[in-house]
Amino acid sequence: MKIDRIIQILLPHDEKFYSLFEEMTRLLQKASIALKKIPDSDPVQTQSLADEIEDLEHQADEVTHRVFAELNATFVTPFDREDIHELASSLDDVMDYINGCSSRFVLYNVRVAPQYMRKLMEIIQLQVETVGKGITYLRDFKNTGMLEEVLKKVNEYENEADTVFNLAIADLFENEKNAIELIKLKEIYIGLETATDRCEDVANVLESILVKHA
Amino acid sequence: MKIDRIIQILLPHDEKFYSLFEEMTRLLQKASIALKKIPDSDPVQTQSLADEIEDLEHQADEVTHRVFAELNATFVTPFDREDIHELASSLDDVMDYINGCSSRFVLYNVRVAPQYMRKLMEIIQLQVETVGKGITYLRDFKNTGMLEEVLKKVNEYENEADTVFNLAIADLFENEKNAIELIKLKEIYIGLETATDRCEDVANVLESILVKHA
Amino acid sequence: MKIDRIIQILLPHDEKFYSLFEEMTRLLQKASIALKKIPDSDPVQTQSLADEIEDLEHQADEVTHRVFAELNATFVTPFDREDIHELASSLDDVMDYINGCSSRFVLYNVRVAPQYMRKLMEIIQLQVETVGKGITYLRDFKNTGMLEEVLKKVNEYENEADTVFNLAIADLFENEKNAIELIKLKEIYIGLETATDRCEDVANVLESILVKHA
Repeated sequence: MKIDRIIQILLPHDEKFYSLFEEMTRLLQKASIALKKIPDSDPVQTQSLADEIEDLEHQADEVTHRVFAELNATFVTPFDREDIHELASSLDDVMDYINGCSSRFVLYNVRVAPQYMRKLMEIIQLQVETVGKGITYLRDFKNTGMLEEVLKKVNEYENEADTVFNLAIADLFENEKNAIELIKLKEIYIGLETATDRCEDVANVLESILVKHA
Repeated sequence: MKIDRIIQILLPHDEKFYSLFEEMTRLLQKASIALKKIPDSDPVQTQSLADEIEDLEHQADEVTHRVFAELNATFVTPFDREDIHELASSLDDVMDYINGCSSRFVLYNVRVAPQYMRKLMEIIQLQVETVGKGITYLRDFKNTGMLEEVLKKVNEYENEADTVFNLAIADLFENEKNAIELIKLKEIYIGLETATDRCEDVANVLESILVKHA
Repeated sequence: MKIDRIIQILLPHDEKFYSLFEEMTRLLQKASIALKKIPDSDPVQTQSLADEIEDLEHQADEVTHRVFAELNATFVTPFDREDIHELASSLDDVMDYINGCSSRFVLYNVRVAPQYMRKLMEIIQLQVETVGKGITYLRDFKNTGMLEEVLKKVNEYENEADTVFNLAIADLFENEKNAIELIKLKEIYIGLETATDRCEDVANVLESILVKHA
């Protein structure tokens, strides 16, 4: 481990990983913006937004596979192999949950998104934007102050999402008398909340990288 | 890592791992065939098939533990330790989900399996059979063409399962007016779909091993 | 790996890890005792117990983060790094599931806990107590007989919990005619059962450590 670290410092780092992670966050940002538009869309627009997100999800899968292939082909990585693996996986998970939510919107034929759902979608979009910033700071570890700021924000969004999620579920059980509608909405809420958890996972990997390189 | 690789090539490989993985896939094949029979069985037969699957699941647990014990006792493994661990875990997961589905069938007293459910069970059986082939190819890495073919097929089955699952859930929410029946069937569907996901995980580990040894 | 082991044996071990894990199990024991009191409490008491558990969960998060920080700062660890990581994560998971169950009790406004639910809460409390014993035995590996006894007991509790869970779910689907009530109770049951699974994960890590050091 320690010797790996020394090698990492001595040898030139691989730019490819940075670019792939940045590409990943660009795709995530597009997906989170499309997701946020769904509650104000008619069924035709919703279908087209869901298709767009599904396409972004496929592109994200490609990028994730390229990270893993690069990892197998590269001897010296800019930071620990397991962190690169974890970072790619958790970014991919965020995308999967965003896609899962938008496809359920179509699949379950959801007509009206409650206010809490809109709020969670907004938080995801802001959180993904912040994660994107964090990823760009990876290139320059002297910028630790900025990265710490970003990580703090991602965690704050996650806490906010937790609060909104709890209120949403309590509201659902109190006011939604149709059990099948309740099941549909609850499942989408869980997907949204899990997306914010996975964003926090991304922040945790970034923090772990920061600690090792500080 | 690279030095590990060289040692792996120079030293005789351990046959035990291959045999244990092959034993695991034999158990999985039996379980997936039993699962497929459930929709055409009366309650007594269903109980007996579920018992058979539960027994296979216990045997699979044993095999998984033997893989882990072997891993701790072996210095030079035929491929990376983490891949062996992941392979054993994901095969065990497939078994757990198959067992979970058949035991829910009994537990929830499900009388009629929708067509989509039968289709998913068929896909699982074919996918498990294909995974079994992939495992036998591990013994001979010159056979990379065959292994690649197998991995492609496993992924195709997973995609097919995704499509069937989405149709099944949409159908359920459109046509099943009894919320409690909907909950039961939806849970079994999720279990079946997750089994195909875990099969894909198995294929992903096999691919990762292939990439490192090609 | 083998060289790591030798270094581990030759150099003095770090007491900090033992203390942190013991602190973690103390928090878990408090939480599991509070959880067990919920079914016999009025709404005001339930809220206060849920608040207490949430506070314990935050403290457990702190301890988990300290384990990870210690792991990054320590060159020679008393046992394998991945085992320390896994042990901290699975203990933290047990706490998360206990907290999830108690907060759902409040959130879903559950008035009456079925007998099976009380039974699962009792099992969790006993299992957590047993896990706590197992953790103290880590300090002294000559005590392998005692540790093995503890691990066997944790697994027995998990099996008992599985049986109770299956009976509980079958009972729920047979007797709870209100789908929304069924959804609420089923979710809490799943959380409780998962807590016992995570306790078993803790035992599995302890077993893995035992195997390597025996």
